[in-house]
Amino acid sequence: MIIVIRQNANKEQLTLFKTTLEERYNVKVNTWQGVESTVLGLIGDTTQIDEDWVNAQEVVESMRRVQEPYKKANRKFHPDNTVIELPTGQTIGDGSLCIMAGPCSVETEEQINYVAERVKRAGASFLRGGAFKPRTSPYSFQGLKSEGLDLLKGARKATGLPIVTEIMRVSHIDMFESVDIIQVGARNMQNFELLKELGKIDKPILLKRGLSSTIEEWLMSAEYIMAGGNNKVILCERGIRTFETATRNTLDLSAVPVVKKLSHLPVIVDPSHATGKSSLVEQMALAAVAAGADGLMIEVHNDPKHARSDGAQSLTPDQFDRVARKVFALKKAYDEIMAE
Amino acid sequence: MIIVIRQNANKEQLTLFKTTLEERYNVKVNTWQGVESTVLGLIGDTTQIDEDWVNAQEVVESMRRVQEPYKKANRKFHPDNTVIELPTGQTIGDGSLCIMAGPCSVETEEQINYVAERVKRAGASFLRGGAFKPRTSPYSFQGLKSEGLDLLKGARKATGLPIVTEIMRVSHIDMFESVDIIQVGARNMQNFELLKELGKIDKPILLKRGLSSTIEEWLMSAEYIMAGGNNKVILCERGIRTFETATRNTLDLSAVPVVKKLSHLPVIVDPSHATGKSSLVEQMALAAVAAGADGLMIEVHNDPKHARSDGAQSLTPDQFDRVARKVFALKKAYDEIMAE
Amino acid sequence: MIIVIRQNANKEQLTLFKTTLEERYNVKVNTWQGVESTVLGLIGDTTQIDEDWVNAQEVVESMRRVQEPYKKANRKFHPDNTVIELPTGQTIGDGSLCIMAGPCSVETEEQINYVAERVKRAGASFLRGGAFKPRTSPYSFQGLKSEGLDLLKGARKATGLPIVTEIMRVSHIDMFESVDIIQVGARNMQNFELLKELGKIDKPILLKRGLSSTIEEWLMSAEYIMAGGNNKVILCERGIRTFETATRNTLDLSAVPVVKKLSHLPVIVDPSHATGKSSLVEQMALAAVAAGADGLMIEVHNDPKHARSDGAQSLTPDQFDRVARKVFALKKAYDEIMAE
Amino acid sequence: MIIVIRQNANKEQLTLFKTTLEERYNVKVNTWQGVESTVLGLIGDTTQIDEDWVNAQEVVESMRRVQEPYKKANRKFHPDNTVIELPTGQTIGDGSLCIMAGPCSVETEEQINYVAERVKRAGASFLRGGAFKPRTSPYSFQGLKSEGLDLLKGARKATGLPIVTEIMRVSHIDMFESVDIIQVGARNMQNFELLKELGKIDKPILLKRGLSSTIEEWLMSAEYIMAGGNNKVILCERGIRTFETATRNTLDLSAVPVVKKLSHLPVIVDPSHATGKSSLVEQMALAAVAAGADGLMIEVHNDPKHARSDGAQSLTPDQFDRVARKVFALKKAYDEIMAE
Repeated sequence: MIIVIRQNANKEQLTLFKTTLEERYNVKVNTWQGVESTVLGLIGDTTQIDEDWVNAQEVVESMRRVQEPYKKANRKFHPDNTVIELPTGQTIGDGSLCIMAGPCSVETEEQINYVAERVKRAGASFLRGGAFKPRTSPYSFQGLKSEGLDLLKGARKATGLPIVTEIMRVSHIDMFESVDIIQVGARNMQNFELLKELGKIDKPILLKRGLSSTIEEWLMSAEYIMAGGNNKVILCERGIRTFETATRNTLDLSAVPVVKKLSHLPVIVDPSHATGKSSLVEQMALAAVAAGADGLMIEVHNDPKHARSDGAQSLTPDQFDRVARKVFALKKAYDEIMAE
Repeated sequence: MIIVIRQNANKEQLTLFKTTLEERYNVKVNTWQGVESTVLGLIGDTTQIDEDWVNAQEVVESMRRVQEPYKKANRKFHPDNTVIELPTGQTIGDGSLCIMAGPCSVETEEQINYVAERVKRAGASFLRGGAFKPRTSPYSFQGLKSEGLDLLKGARKATGLPIVTEIMRVSHIDMFESVDIIQVGARNMQNFELLKELGKIDKPILLKRGLSSTIEEWLMSAEYIMAGGNNKVILCERGIRTFETATRNTLDLSAVPVVKKLSHLPVIVDPSHATGKSSLVEQMALAAVAAGADGLMIEVHNDPKHARSDGAQSLTPDQFDRVARKVFALKKAYDEIMAE
Repeated sequence: MIIVIRQNANKEQLTLFKTTLEERYNVKVNTWQGVESTVLGLIGDTTQIDEDWVNAQEVVESMRRVQEPYKKANRKFHPDNTVIELPTGQTIGDGSLCIMAGPCSVETEEQINYVAERVKRAGASFLRGGAFKPRTSPYSFQGLKSEGLDLLKGARKATGLPIVTEIMRVSHIDMFESVDIIQVGARNMQNFELLKELGKIDKPILLKRGLSSTIEEWLMSAEYIMAGGNNKVILCERGIRTFETATRNTLDLSAVPVVKKLSHLPVIVDPSHATGKSSLVEQMALAAVAAGADGLMIEVHNDPKHARSDGAQSLTPDQFDRVARKVFALKKAYDEIMAE
Repeated sequence: MIIVIRQNANKEQLTLFKTTLEERYNVKVNTWQGVESTVLGLIGDTTQIDEDWVNAQEVVESMRRVQEPYKKANRKFHPDNTVIELPTGQTIGDGSLCIMAGPCSVETEEQINYVAERVKRAGASFLRGGAFKPRTSPYSFQGLKSEGLDLLKGARKATGLPIVTEIMRVSHIDMFESVDIIQVGARNMQNFELLKELGKIDKPILLKRGLSSTIEEWLMSAEYIMAGGNNKVILCERGIRTFETATRNTLDLSAVPVVKKLSHLPVIVDPSHATGKSSLVEQMALAAVAAGADGLMIEVHNDPKHARSDGAQSLTPDQFDRVARKVFALKKAYDEIMAE
């Protein structure tokens, strides 16, 4: 951490500040004395240092970190890719392309079983489906709740596909015990209490990027889970909010290579929520593969016109067949090209 | 609600769509037939209609609401201002200017009592202070938790100031029973499970605007609380995220008159979090008053340099004295000018 | 165009408004009378109707276009892709992938000739290079100006590669007469006077998307050029400004399929400016191909460390060799996959 | 300037880099050697140093400026406020509140003379009006052009009000010779060729902030004008582009105190363009005064319903009377409060 000291800083205050840094945070402070300004360089583990506190000091002009504020999620300290392996054998982050597919909301037994069967046949290795739905309006359909969870488990039994579904409150963690991957939605990316509790369990967590979260904040939210002891975090880019209105959000595909440089965690991409339009899903799924994503999350509904939520962005099973075929073909070509 | 039908829409599908609308949502559908396009006009309570479902229909080109999607928070249906009155007599939204002041985090008994005493003397009518702190980093100070709540209650007892403090999880609602105003932070504005539960209690809720939330989404979150039966919602503008880096967020003061037109709920402004810099608080507090805000939330710390969080944006008690004096003087002038 | 009339609109004013619409804009106005609101539907060419004027009418609650406000750039009226052909045979928009490569700034004869030779050998079909540079700071290098143009022409003579370079003022149009493709930079996307003049010449214009421009505004700027008679417009996505700081801008790859649906104009992608980091160029170039881009614009410098501008995002010729090889290989695979 | 060197930097390269810095930019380079990283501190005038070039060096991990990149616009080097004085006596930046009012577009002689007369009587000290209009659509009204300039001069003659009007291309500078204040619109804030030419004349320039420009970029554009020798720059905040759609742009009032700390130039606020709604102008004009603005730019039209552009945000002369009365009353109160 580099701290620039104000030009007119009081000498005594500066000495006190340096002592406090060394004592409170157990770091070594080096001073570089320039003509117009003084700069402090801190050596040691600075992730514990509170930026707010530093910025509040009268002697401080500004500061910047040289190290990232996250440790467990940081590739510098864990150079190898994290690979998530499920007891049933599926993997995420080992270089293969995993597809999580299914309806936005679980609606009926026939629906979820039919969709599960179809996406499995097309090559998806996970079934996604919402039982508890975060909806902007209190008057919109909020999901089938525990009944939806039961239907998902039924579809898992029928197809063998592990299930991915979203949790919305801490008190539901027990109810989600037999869920294979627990999803944290974009709106809960900084629900720190939920993250802390998910850090205490031993189950993969799929962490969606918040609508206006920086990549650093996203990795800090992963760090929250990992700080609790759960290292099985999968990141999911799902679009950020910008001024553009032609798409629901703006898919930030450069986040994929950026995260892969900064972190060892797997990153998947959700083109359905990012664009909000089924007609854009195929093209952005292909682009995500070429950007180096470890997987895709795609909405598939047996009958999008009658979907109780997010129908506008759902593919039909037939459309999904075509998209999956192209995506896997591109992935194969991509791997050969990158291996050269 | 106006729905534009695709040029090449199938007649049968269109008929089916109209019947479904009328039966599922109990609205009347009028058809206006143009040369190049057909437009449907829906009459009745359209707040229940799911936009996603409409947009997913093959016959639909696009749609737009004529009515806002919120009812209880809507000024059209409740023309009079909502005034929040506390049992101890303080009011918010009655035309007076309320100030909620105090430290970002409660730290010690001496600290909170001293600050409470000072802000009361300067004219604040509420004591704010964080016991549970939402921090971006798991390694930052997370608040004194229940001990912090006890210290706040102690300061209330000593000064008579009602307390405002942030809740972060549903299971804490019982613990917050004797808190006077429960705050929902920006990061939890769309923690719908929390909003639902807060809708079931009878206590004012201060709802901060999310970092990237539109005004409509903010009002929909208020609607979540109100839909549960709790109409005591206070809105708090605290800055939105933009590309600008000179301030921590961009304070959107135009949100104040916009919300006042759309809704009957009181709106206050938090210049401390919005700017992130104590040197900008005075000016933006004055601007908020002139924008028509019902109140201000201002961070005050006995010793910002040693604050355990957000010190950079905290005023000292002496600085707060001056700001409060100016703010009340401007409010007086403003009221006289607007009354003419 | 659909216009929603205020609930309490004065009858006489409404009649006057409708008459004015019909007379001033030569459209037919249909009225649909609902219970709570009246809606007008306009038939005819509404691209001429000024939204500001409509919104300013007292009787108007709100309005929305059913048709896009652009005509010449609109795929609805020109279903076939526009293909740009140069006299020297190069094409853009015909399904092939064109690469425009070269240094941010032209610096010396040796530099530009060497880079031109290298990018040609690697498969680029155009040489890009800046002679006039739009720099944020007046103290930064502003380009070699007319001397830079001469050097570009020399490199063209040596390699046969057509040249693409940026224009910054109307009075330079004559000087750019022998340039093959004239580039309009992001900061000049709404320099309407420049666009108008470029509409009068017969030469391909590469129009970069503005930093905070919507896709609709971008297409309206293309419309400015086309309205003057020059239909040879190539669109270039180069990243938009968001809150994210890990990359210089956020590359909006979903803009590629969105533009291809809305317009018949070719779209290329500039991963160098979008990310601002050479280490991200390869991955985002591949992603752009899979998103369906017609071409790429990539910065290549013989010696990025000594580049006089934008060195941080430039590839070396050796790096570009590898990127071009991968990009063309992926394009081949992509075409085969999409042709199935 | 502080430069952080990569951990594994090559010693020879580092030495070469330091020598180049000292020789090319005439600065002194101090080296601070930490355990994990090396930091360079540069002393001297670093405004000339190209950040792109620094970032492109292989040995460089990252850099940050300690000094701002602008000099002439910087308050550090010019502590006193710049006051713009017109030959006719009007002043901007001397602590008084100046109002520039008038129609978006000049339309007829009667219109402009009537509006000029009315805004003068209400207290405006400048007449604003557009002769050349930057319009998103090529099919929208583009202004009366030179005829509009003549009408403005006529209104000036009739009322004595100096005129403010927008320039859109370099070749018009001669035509604008008798304009009192030349406005550069938001879309041309980084039309560097125009800025350079305006730096060569001796006339106040009103520089609007770009839709997505940071405050630093805005001040750099002012620096472009000042670097040419023209120090008479007036900054105008007019809203930035965000995701919010309830207002046309988001008025960033915190930019006023931020600019006043960083620069000595006067800052005015345009609530008409920022909000895009006449119903919000009064409230935001008052807020701008309380934020410390030196002036206001407000659109006034004799007949907003028939305005040829931007009618939705224009006040009628009667509305402007009321707004101006309140604004001046608030300014008086504000000055008394701040003087205490």
